[in-house]
Amino acid sequence: MTVLGAIEGGGTKFVVGIGTSDGTIIETESFPTTTPEETMERTVQFFLNKGVEAIGFGSFGPVELNRASDTYGHIAKTPKPHWSGYDVVGHLKRHFQVPIGFDTDVNAAALGEATWGAAQGLNSCLYITIGTGIGAGAVVEGKLVHGLTHPEMGHIVVPRHVDDTYAGKCPYHGDCLEGMAAGPAIEERWGVKAYELGEDHQAWEFQAHYIAQALMNYILILSPEKIVLGGGVSKQRHLFPRIHEKLRQLLNGYVQHPAILTDSASYIVSPGLEDRAGITGSLALAVQALREQC
Amino acid sequence: MTVLGAIEGGGTKFVVGIGTSDGTIIETESFPTTTPEETMERTVQFFLNKGVEAIGFGSFGPVELNRASDTYGHIAKTPKPHWSGYDVVGHLKRHFQVPIGFDTDVNAAALGEATWGAAQGLNSCLYITIGTGIGAGAVVEGKLVHGLTHPEMGHIVVPRHVDDTYAGKCPYHGDCLEGMAAGPAIEERWGVKAYELGEDHQAWEFQAHYIAQALMNYILILSPEKIVLGGGVSKQRHLFPRIHEKLRQLLNGYVQHPAILTDSASYIVSPGLEDRAGITGSLALAVQALREQC
Repeated sequence: MTVLGAIEGGGTKFVVGIGTSDGTIIETESFPTTTPEETMERTVQFFLNKGVEAIGFGSFGPVELNRASDTYGHIAKTPKPHWSGYDVVGHLKRHFQVPIGFDTDVNAAALGEATWGAAQGLNSCLYITIGTGIGAGAVVEGKLVHGLTHPEMGHIVVPRHVDDTYAGKCPYHGDCLEGMAAGPAIEERWGVKAYELGEDHQAWEFQAHYIAQALMNYILILSPEKIVLGGGVSKQRHLFPRIHEKLRQLLNGYVQHPAILTDSASYIVSPGLEDRAGITGSLALAVQALREQC
Repeated sequence: MTVLGAIEGGGTKFVVGIGTSDGTIIETESFPTTTPEETMERTVQFFLNKGVEAIGFGSFGPVELNRASDTYGHIAKTPKPHWSGYDVVGHLKRHFQVPIGFDTDVNAAALGEATWGAAQGLNSCLYITIGTGIGAGAVVEGKLVHGLTHPEMGHIVVPRHVDDTYAGKCPYHGDCLEGMAAGPAIEERWGVKAYELGEDHQAWEFQAHYIAQALMNYILILSPEKIVLGGGVSKQRHLFPRIHEKLRQLLNGYVQHPAILTDSASYIVSPGLEDRAGITGSLALAVQALREQC
C-alpha cells in the first residue's frame, strides 16, 4: 500500500494527513498557522518515519507555481506576517526525498472533487469556497488551470445589487466579489455574523445576487461540467435554490444545456468530500506528483 | 508535404483554405454564408480533388462539441435562419474520409495564436475578438477550453460605466459585455459607426472601461500567459494604452506579475496572425485532428 502525505495549508490553520492513493485519509492532525518556521517544522514532524512516498501541499496564496522560476514553491508577497517569500516546498524537500505536489488550496480542492468527489469522472469542474475569503480552483480537460500565475477568481468584478450601498471590503478592489460577498463583508454590512441572519433577511437576496453573477461569469468563461460550492456559505442550504433561480434568470436561456435550463440542483452542488475537500484534494496532489514522476 | 484544409465558418462569410502543417496558408477563397446546404456544398467543391489529409473547421456558434453526443458536429439552436441543428461535420464526412477537427471560430483563433502567432511557445493564451459580436477562446495547459459546452465569454456581466445610460443591445442579457461594447452597441449608442468616432470621443473611454473589466475577469479566472485582442476594435491602436492603464488601476497590484504591473503592452497584443487568425486557427484544428488520429 502506497502511503501518501497531504497538507492543507490554510492562513489560519494547517491540516496534515496521511492517506492512500484511493482517496482515503487515514490519520490527520491540525494546528494553528504561526510563523513559517514553526508551522513547517510541525508539519515535518508529523510526516517523519511515516514512510510517505509523495506529499501534496495545497497552500493559501498567493504562491509561485511556475516550475521554471527560482522561487517555485515559495509563498509570494502576502500581507500575512513572515510568510512572504518563504520556501515551503524547499523546507519539505530538505526532509523528504519524495515527489512533492504543490498548488493553491482551492486548486487542490477542485482536483479532489474531480478525482473522488462531486465531479468524479468528469473532465472539468469548478470548486468555489465562500467563507472568510472567496477562492476558486478549476479543472479543465482533466488538468488544473494555471498560466501566468494561478487563478484568483474571488476578486472578479460583478455588477452591484441595485439596493446595496455597502462600499465593499476588499483592500485592493473595494467592491469586487470577495469585497461584497465574503464573510467579513456580510458581517460589516449587517453588524452580525452570517450564520446569525434569519433566512428571510435581505442579506441572502444580496448573497444570491453576487454568487449567481459570479457563477454566470465562471460558466461563460470556463464552461465547467460541475460546480462545487463549499465553505461556510454552502452550509446555508436555503441559499442554493435562490442561486439556481437567479442564475437561470441571468443566463436567460443562452447556455442551452439541461444542467442550467432545468437541472441546476444537480449542477451546482455541495462538496462530495464535504469538509474534507481541502485535505483530500491535497492527497490528490500527492497522487498526481507520484504519477508525474513515473 | 501534408496538405490540409481549413474552414473559417462565420455567420456572414465563409473562408476556406488549403495549407500545410507549418501554419502556411497556400490558397483561400471566401463567399457569403447563405443556406447551410448551399454554403457547405460550395465548401466541399473547394476541397474536392485537392488531396487534403485532414480538415479543420472553426465555426460560428453555438455548436455541439461533445463527442459523446448524437448531435456532435452540429450547429446548435441559433437565431440564424436554417442553420439550427445542421450537421456541418456530417456534411463534410460524407465527402471526405479524413480526420475533421471542429471547434468554435474563437477557439480556433486561440489555438492558431498559440501555435504560430502571438502566443507561440506558451501553454496558455486568451484570444478575444470585438466586432459585430464579442467572442473569446482560450488555451489552458496546451489545450482548448471546453466543458459543459464551449465558452461564451462575450456575454459575461461587468459593472456599467457610471456615466453610461445606454440600456444594452444583447437580446438575452441586455447590458452584458457584448450588449455594451460590441460594434452594434457602439453604433446604436452614438448614432455612428465606431470607426467614425474621433479618438477623443467619450465612446473610447466607455470601451476601455468595459474591455479592461472583462480582461480583469478573464485574467483572474484563467490566468492566461498572453492576451490577443482581435476584431475591428483592435484596429483602434489608441485604445490599447487606455486599456492597459485601466486594467492596471482595476487590478491595483493584486496580480504580482511584471506582465501586468509593468509590461502590459507586450501582454495584451494584436493578433500575431493579423487578419489570418481565423483561417490559420482552423488550419491548427486540422493539424490537431491529424495528430489525434495517430
